[in-house]
Amino acid sequence: MPGKVAVYRKEHFNAAHRLFNPAWNNDKNNAVFGKCNNPNFHGHNYEIIVRLVGEPDPETGYVIDLKALSDLIKENVLKKFDHKNLNLDTPYFKNRNPTAENICIVIYDILREKIDKRLDIQVRLYETERNFVEYPVTKENF
Amino acid sequence: MPGKVAVYRKEHFNAAHRLFNPAWNNDKNNAVFGKCNNPNFHGHNYEIIVRLVGEPDPETGYVIDLKALSDLIKENVLKKFDHKNLNLDTPYFKNRNPTAENICIVIYDILREKIDKRLDIQVRLYETERNFVEYPVTKENF
Amino acid sequence: MPGKVAVYRKEHFNAAHRLFNPAWNNDKNNAVFGKCNNPNFHGHNYEIIVRLVGEPDPETGYVIDLKALSDLIKENVLKKFDHKNLNLDTPYFKNRNPTAENICIVIYDILREKIDKRLDIQVRLYETERNFVEYPVTKENF
Amino acid sequence: MPGKVAVYRKEHFNAAHRLFNPAWNNDKNNAVFGKCNNPNFHGHNYEIIVRLVGEPDPETGYVIDLKALSDLIKENVLKKFDHKNLNLDTPYFKNRNPTAENICIVIYDILREKIDKRLDIQVRLYETERNFVEYPVTKENF
Amino acid sequence: MPGKVAVYRKEHFNAAHRLFNPAWNNDKNNAVFGKCNNPNFHGHNYEIIVRLVGEPDPETGYVIDLKALSDLIKENVLKKFDHKNLNLDTPYFKNRNPTAENICIVIYDILREKIDKRLDIQVRLYETERNFVEYPVTKENF
Amino acid sequence: MPGKVAVYRKEHFNAAHRLFNPAWNNDKNNAVFGKCNNPNFHGHNYEIIVRLVGEPDPETGYVIDLKALSDLIKENVLKKFDHKNLNLDTPYFKNRNPTAENICIVIYDILREKIDKRLDIQVRLYETERNFVEYPVTKENF
Repeated sequence: MPGKVAVYRKEHFNAAHRLFNPAWNNDKNNAVFGKCNNPNFHGHNYEIIVRLVGEPDPETGYVIDLKALSDLIKENVLKKFDHKNLNLDTPYFKNRNPTAENICIVIYDILREKIDKRLDIQVRLYETERNFVEYPVTKENF
Repeated sequence: MPGKVAVYRKEHFNAAHRLFNPAWNNDKNNAVFGKCNNPNFHGHNYEIIVRLVGEPDPETGYVIDLKALSDLIKENVLKKFDHKNLNLDTPYFKNRNPTAENICIVIYDILREKIDKRLDIQVRLYETERNFVEYPVTKENF
Repeated sequence: MPGKVAVYRKEHFNAAHRLFNPAWNNDKNNAVFGKCNNPNFHGHNYEIIVRLVGEPDPETGYVIDLKALSDLIKENVLKKFDHKNLNLDTPYFKNRNPTAENICIVIYDILREKIDKRLDIQVRLYETERNFVEYPVTKENF
Repeated sequence: MPGKVAVYRKEHFNAAHRLFNPAWNNDKNNAVFGKCNNPNFHGHNYEIIVRLVGEPDPETGYVIDLKALSDLIKENVLKKFDHKNLNLDTPYFKNRNPTAENICIVIYDILREKIDKRLDIQVRLYETERNFVEYPVTKENF
Repeated sequence: MPGKVAVYRKEHFNAAHRLFNPAWNNDKNNAVFGKCNNPNFHGHNYEIIVRLVGEPDPETGYVIDLKALSDLIKENVLKKFDHKNLNLDTPYFKNRNPTAENICIVIYDILREKIDKRLDIQVRLYETERNFVEYPVTKENF
Repeated sequence: MPGKVAVYRKEHFNAAHRLFNPAWNNDKNNAVFGKCNNPNFHGHNYEIIVRLVGEPDPETGYVIDLKALSDLIKENVLKKFDHKNLNLDTPYFKNRNPTAENICIVIYDILREKIDKRLDIQVRLYETERNFVEYPVTKENF
């Protein structure tokens, strides 16, 4: 019995966003968010890596069919985020900023509902090649 | 006399854009531009590679100091495009679409004015890792 | 009139192949092709980059819609090669070896028939990150 | 006393494989494994990353000489898998499918026997840039 | 309350180094360190990834402003290491070898002093694309 | 008759170097070369891509066996440059600076002597991911 294996699937989407706190005035928003506060938005090619941990099925050798995981991410995440304005075109960032941290948490919450509870999930989100985040932080990280 | 050498410098910027033709109605814009026509914009991490061709200076061994080229691209291109909305925050796409092709031509035109005429220039622009363009197309391409 | 722009689209496929010359005996095949002559085949994640050169349409700003180019490559190349044995499952390598050079020529020939004659085409094929080829070689290369 | 450090070495091999369960009929194999069940095989450029955890030797500053680790992976893993058909040319997949999960477990088992027991080992295997796995899953992951 | 998120920032520096133990004679140094013991040094493009773990600030959505983290790494690490000889131009490797392991520990020690104690830190250092290390090794790794 | 194909092989080496002109005083060298003039050297992971253009052999389908090209580059270039100080350990930069431009010309000159004259050669050299050069510049570039 080999035990658990982690499997990963990488996907991407392109979106616009703007960082600001509506409770603050312009000067404070500029001081904190700098050019990320551009009122007309800017954008990114986001990369997401979804990690699932579980035991391989002895009949298939799969923890999960990664094609099925890819389809599930496309249906539940990319359809909502790809070629969208994260602030205006999605319901998730009405009351919180679309920072990499918050986008990652939102994607985790969406996927956690759709994936078999026996599988642990983590999500890593690249905003750029040099800035990235991951959630949740448990003992079993990548 | 070794002759000419090509030197390259890679930079990047993050921007929002939208593709549509104001002379067309919504249906036609959707048919032609699909999700790139999202009215609230989407965005990309653009990568640009600037290529200069010339003879190395015998005293330095440089065609150009690539640090100086990097500064020149930052001052003349990135300051205008990074964390901007290409349609709304720049003057270049009032009468043409910010497609990868047109952004690349605009960047070439900006840099051609600023760089020594003895050096040939080409610009390659990556909109995503899988979609990219280059301009101009001459006998000396990369 | 800015003139011509080159546009590129990257796709990939996974395939098995074997290199050998049926006119030669085993010893000569092993001497020339080494482990690439494994009788039970080996395989690669092939990356292809298709380059088209033409003038952007003034109404769209596109040389070609890269989504349309992607679909065309998927329909005409990937369907035939992805998850296939190049020697046994395709008609192209009955009388020539599926070397990177020959696969690249075959892909060019397939695409040249399907793409508007006003657009120049080149194909680059990566067999591995360190071994790659491109065809045809003209004055307008990348 | 700084404590433990993790060190990583990346290697690669190219191989053919086919996914199917001999206990199932053709229709079920196609339904489950799709194009991965192609009877004539397909293939991949596999990347492996081996992670060892231990304390650096105070005389060398090394946890392990990564050149020695590279040689050990080449001798024990790449010689068996590179330019091979995983189903037909190796003894490991007679009774289980050469999925990424199972290949990763096999490589771990091979290396665990050859490496000093004071060093913890994990293996990550990339089947493609977008599909990858790692084993074992412990509290000390990457 | 979503809990903790890991955030990452990637930076790079270029440096020369040499591996040898002054307590050993030449033959032993060559036997152990091989070409890394070249008396005139060799060099690398080092990549570093700094990982911080903490709870996002509810007002900003940031664990930390990654621009501020980048500036902090530049000021405290890159200024000391970039375009330097690690053996001769820094005080850190007088009594220990500048192996990847030791460089990573030194960078961690520098940053640990400068970063809010509520945030956990780990550092990954790439000496080449194929050889890399990370420190410390805890239950919360990447 | 398909005509010519370009084939590429990528290799790498790690080396130390320093940029300065001995005919100039310290102040001028610092003004021109900045931190690249560090007297104790700094270093890079250099990547080289060698491109050959020729007709595939009809019996093998190869322009050249890329394994043979790899061996030739290792024997003639990497043995001389890998883990070396380019200024002190090689004869090539006694009277010219080891800039990327000059290293690329030197590698071209070395390889041009060793490779069949019917094959055209070009060399691309990456000093970093963002700074690279290629030589010679002809009508047939990459």
